Amino acid sequence: MLYPTPIAKLIDSFSKLPGIGIKTATRLAFYTIGMSDEDVNDFAKNLLAAKRELTYCSVCGNLTDDDPCSICTDDSRDQSAILVVEESKDVSAMEKIQEYHGLYHVLGGLISPMNGIGPDDINLKTLITRLMDSPVEEVIIATNATADGEATAMYISRVLKPAGIKVTRLARGLAVGSDIEYADEVTLLRAIENRTEL
Amino acid sequence: MLYPTPIAKLIDSFSKLPGIGIKTATRLAFYTIGMSDEDVNDFAKNLLAAKRELTYCSVCGNLTDDDPCSICTDDSRDQSAILVVEESKDVSAMEKIQEYHGLYHVLGGLISPMNGIGPDDINLKTLITRLMDSPVEEVIIATNATADGEATAMYISRVLKPAGIKVTRLARGLAVGSDIEYADEVTLLRAIENRTEL
Repeated sequence: MLYPTPIAKLIDSFSKLPGIGIKTATRLAFYTIGMSDEDVNDFAKNLLAAKRELTYCSVCGNLTDDDPCSICTDDSRDQSAILVVEESKDVSAMEKIQEYHGLYHVLGGLISPMNGIGPDDINLKTLITRLMDSPVEEVIIATNATADGEATAMYISRVLKPAGIKVTRLARGLAVGSDIEYADEVTLLRAIENRTEL
Repeated sequence: MLYPTPIAKLIDSFSKLPGIGIKTATRLAFYTIGMSDEDVNDFAKNLLAAKRELTYCSVCGNLTDDDPCSICTDDSRDQSAILVVEESKDVSAMEKIQEYHGLYHVLGGLISPMNGIGPDDINLKTLITRLMDSPVEEVIIATNATADGEATAMYISRVLKPAGIKVTRLARGLAVGSDIEYADEVTLLRAIENRTEL
C-alpha cells in the first residue's frame, strides 16, 4: 500500500489538471482532507455546477450561464463595434480595463495551418452572419500577437473588408514598463513603424 | 460582470488551495470546463469520498479508510519496532523504499514551543499507551530534521528511555547526490561526527 484508495483517487484527479504533477497533486489532496466539510462540499458542488450550467452564448460564443449572454443582451452597450477575441478569458481581461463598451465575438480558437485548424474549425461563420443586416461599423481584432493570432487576424480582415466593414486590430509596440534593451526585434520594428507624435 | 457566477465560484474554490493564486485558479477553472463530463464527475466524487471515507487509525494515527489501518492489522510486519513520523505522507515516503517492515506511529504534528504546541497537542499519549505490555523493543524517531522535529525527538526520547525502550533516530549527514560545497554547516558537522568506516 502507498496511499488509501480514496486519497489515491483524489491525487489522480488533481494530477489531471494542467501544470500539476504528482507531487503537487499529493500536496493538494492531503490539504483538501484537512479543509472544512463545507469548503470541500462547495468545491465539489462548484465543479459540477460549472460543468453543467455553463454554456457558450449562441450569439457571440462567450462562456455564459444565460444564453444569450449578459453582454449580448445589454442594450446600453455600443452596438456598432464588435471586438474579436480567441477565448472567454480575453473578454474578461478586456472588461477589466472598463474602456471598451461594444460587443464581443469569441472565436474559441485560432486558425493554425500548422495544426490543421482552418477557418471552419473556429466560431467564425456566426461572426459573418452577425454582420449581415447589423449596425456594426467596426470589427476590432484582438487575437494574440502570435503567428496563429496574426494569421487569423489577416484572414478575418480579408473576408470582411470587401463587405465595406472597417477592420482594425490592437496596436503593436512596447509593453508598458518594458525595457527597449530586452524587446525582441519584431516588437521594436512595429514600435518604430507605429510611432506616435508627442 | 467579469465571469459568469458558476465559474467565479469555481475559481474561488481553486484559489483556497495552497500555492494557488487567482491567476492559476482561473486557468484551472477554465481547463476544468473543457474536461470530459466523466472526469469532472469523478473529480467531484473523489473530493467528497476522500473527505468522507478517510479517518485516522485509532492505533497509529495514520490516515486510512479502514480502522485499524492495513499496517497495524498486518501480522507479517515486525511487531518489535515502531517508527515515529510527523505526517501520513511520511509513512508513504518510508513505505516506498521497502526497507522498513515494522509498525508506524503518526504524530499529526510536532512539538513547537514557538507556536504554543505542546506534547498534549499531538498524538503522543497513544504512543505511550501502545508501548505498555507490548513486544516493542525499538522506537525509531523519524521526525523532520528541523528545530521542531529535533525538539519532538528529544522529548520522546526523554519520556521513553527511563522505561528501558531503545530509542533511535534517522542518521544525519550529507544527502546522497549533494555537494559538500553547498552543504550547510550543521549538516557538515553531523556528517563528520557520524562518519562511518569504509
